[in-house]
Amino acid sequence: MPSPSPGHAITMRVAAPTGFSATAELTSAVAAAGAEVTALDMIESGHDGVVVDITCNTAGEEHAARVSAALDAVEGVEVRKVSDRTFLMHLGGKLSVEPKVELRNRDDLSRAYTPGVARVCLAIAANPADARRLTIKRNTVAVVTDGTAVLGLGDIGAAAALPVMEGKAALFKRFADVDAWPVCLDTTDTEEIIAIVKALAPVYGGVNLEDIAAPRCFEIERRLRAELDIPVFHDDQHGTAIVVLAALINALRVVGKAMADVRIVVSGAGAAGSAIIRLLHEQGAEHIVACDRKGALYAGRGDSDPHRQWIADHTNPGRFVGSLHEALVGADVFIGVSAPDVIAAEHVATMADGAVVLALANPDPEIHPLEAARHATVVATGRSDFPNQINNVLAFPGLFRGLLDATARHITTPMLVAAAEAIADCVGRDELGPSYIVPSVFDPRVAPAVAEAVVAVATAPAAG
Amino acid sequence: MPSPSPGHAITMRVAAPTGFSATAELTSAVAAAGAEVTALDMIESGHDGVVVDITCNTAGEEHAARVSAALDAVEGVEVRKVSDRTFLMHLGGKLSVEPKVELRNRDDLSRAYTPGVARVCLAIAANPADARRLTIKRNTVAVVTDGTAVLGLGDIGAAAALPVMEGKAALFKRFADVDAWPVCLDTTDTEEIIAIVKALAPVYGGVNLEDIAAPRCFEIERRLRAELDIPVFHDDQHGTAIVVLAALINALRVVGKAMADVRIVVSGAGAAGSAIIRLLHEQGAEHIVACDRKGALYAGRGDSDPHRQWIADHTNPGRFVGSLHEALVGADVFIGVSAPDVIAAEHVATMADGAVVLALANPDPEIHPLEAARHATVVATGRSDFPNQINNVLAFPGLFRGLLDATARHITTPMLVAAAEAIADCVGRDELGPSYIVPSVFDPRVAPAVAEAVVAVATAPAAG
Repeated sequence: MPSPSPGHAITMRVAAPTGFSATAELTSAVAAAGAEVTALDMIESGHDGVVVDITCNTAGEEHAARVSAALDAVEGVEVRKVSDRTFLMHLGGKLSVEPKVELRNRDDLSRAYTPGVARVCLAIAANPADARRLTIKRNTVAVVTDGTAVLGLGDIGAAAALPVMEGKAALFKRFADVDAWPVCLDTTDTEEIIAIVKALAPVYGGVNLEDIAAPRCFEIERRLRAELDIPVFHDDQHGTAIVVLAALINALRVVGKAMADVRIVVSGAGAAGSAIIRLLHEQGAEHIVACDRKGALYAGRGDSDPHRQWIADHTNPGRFVGSLHEALVGADVFIGVSAPDVIAAEHVATMADGAVVLALANPDPEIHPLEAARHATVVATGRSDFPNQINNVLAFPGLFRGLLDATARHITTPMLVAAAEAIADCVGRDELGPSYIVPSVFDPRVAPAVAEAVVAVATAPAAG
Repeated sequence: MPSPSPGHAITMRVAAPTGFSATAELTSAVAAAGAEVTALDMIESGHDGVVVDITCNTAGEEHAARVSAALDAVEGVEVRKVSDRTFLMHLGGKLSVEPKVELRNRDDLSRAYTPGVARVCLAIAANPADARRLTIKRNTVAVVTDGTAVLGLGDIGAAAALPVMEGKAALFKRFADVDAWPVCLDTTDTEEIIAIVKALAPVYGGVNLEDIAAPRCFEIERRLRAELDIPVFHDDQHGTAIVVLAALINALRVVGKAMADVRIVVSGAGAAGSAIIRLLHEQGAEHIVACDRKGALYAGRGDSDPHRQWIADHTNPGRFVGSLHEALVGADVFIGVSAPDVIAAEHVATMADGAVVLALANPDPEIHPLEAARHATVVATGRSDFPNQINNVLAFPGLFRGLLDATARHITTPMLVAAAEAIADCVGRDELGPSYIVPSVFDPRVAPAVAEAVVAVATAPAAG
């Protein structure tokens, strides 16, 4: 059974008899059912009974039902209502649009709206660059999805993807004061998506593509980058690549190896895998072997997909042919952006001394971190309940903060590298160790450091 | 020269010698140059001089320059900087996107974002109606334009239209707590606009079309109404029609005439004129003559535009043929949604006793209100500096508040009528008079009254 988690927290409103030593007996019943009590609030207390709200983390819906039933079975106790804290948090959505100007009287109205606004419109019509000064374009990013590759859920559609995009927008604001807005498109037609994002662009200073299925996502990003004058960034590719590079830079510092020397095995050749490999290649990694379900990619394997072809042509110089498990023998680094449980401890055991395992499949990694740690020196996953959580939120808020501040028109590879180095450098050399290779997502230094690094590249004399 | 207005307010930072009686001499210099002083703030005061910020309304850029020069010419006075208050208000845009959820720690993150959010996504995938409960769709309206008919400025493009759409969104929040978001489309292709708005619809509970040129706006609205399951409303048409109907209901109460009896002349047969005529027709107005630049519309005039054809077929039963000025002779009501100065006092003089003049061309009406008032009993315009300002902000915030509260899928004519009656009824019978036929845009009773009226229609058993 999975562990209890806040994502499955419930609040039970419970009536119990007076004299019943509520806190102790109720919480022990909940704990006995396998849940973690996180809060207990007395709602009413009378001579004939008490009413208490008990909040606890459960392992999922079935478990929540068992916890509630177990509590209800205690003599004299009645569970009146079970609320799901995650759903409660989503009621009415997670974003609001707020005016930054006061509209108290006619004077305000005549400047923020008609007739005064007409002069601002004319100024922008005369000098389009003024839109970045006089409108929300200055600080606003579109979070664009077609709902086809949402989290690990797959193609759930635009409407069902909206809670993720709202959450992403909330993170943009929370971590980097970027105004982000969800654009969930009820179409999966590549050309239509490209046309729509181009048409929407006047309002935005940047585009964050999100959870769009491969290979469509590659073409959409390529074309929008070519045809728009605002930065376009596919987070599932480049956000992941940035945080992986940041983690690898520090992991190699821990094990004392150099990027150009290490043998790297990447499991997964989709959107994320492809972007990671390109960025590592750019950073001088010379010994990369990428594996998909059919095993190692090599020049001449006969892949028709142009991204796999590029990978085959630029990695695996020794033309290794074999399975993922065979590729791992003697490797220094494993990077997983594929599927749960594709490797086991016995495979990590075949890796070189000082092995680094970055197992990022979500929510369940390629290998459980405790299993990996039996033989690897450094282990990182996407899980928040183990050390070294590798999370894109380390990258995208600060990256766009920097792009907007620099009024950048394009994203370049040097910006991605600068962002990764900034994240890595947020871990002091004295703090760095096998269980601390990336800063916490709540480390307030990260987003400003990333933004500053991106601005430095964007405004450097030779920048593209 | 136009009058000074807050839309052209400037703030001048001025250095003047000590001993100089700053307030009196500075303000009188500004007033002598024809500006209205609205604020005076002492910034520094030392033994060798003072620095003062003087804010004043001017009549426009040229006048502002003259005012500043006049002040600078006063001996010992130096104007250091002139700031435009309207532009200052627009710096960085007028909207922000704010999270409604706190993201303080991992627990918050795991409910608002991954992994908890996945359950909310799955709930919506299983039951799409839950999107109205668990996402921003519940309270969010798209303000959609292609930038082709912005205010009186015409086709200035999507980017230059953004300040207006931001202002509109700010009004939505200020007056009815609706979250509205600007969608400025860099395309004027009718089919593309329709396809884009349909693709964007998952995020929104309603669509407010704005400042889209006729006749494209008719087709876009018609098709979106037919093809979407959220309400679609073209404010330039129906918002204007609602506030005109509200004003006319009260104006007729003032002059003691009945809708079915009065002779109404409408100047302008575009988007607004067409919608006004349809709504008045629906409300039982039987004697309407519509005029465009070619004079009165009548059945058989040979108009090819289907909206003019509809007007010709449903108005002017006596087949009057002639000019606007000829049509006005003996008329009870003039409604102008056309161009500045198309009628004069002499034409109003030919109208029936107790004439009503609603001259709504913006920013300059079909006749100056003081001229109209020489012969008409009731005069209303879009101008805020005369009584009876007819402003769409009386209608659209409350209308969408009601539509969202009722989770309405469509807008019906009875809703528009109910909104108009609610606005009219916000003026008490004891307050009603020639110079008070519509409530103030700042009257806090208006939006809730409109919303309630719309909900009542939307949730009535026979509602469409």
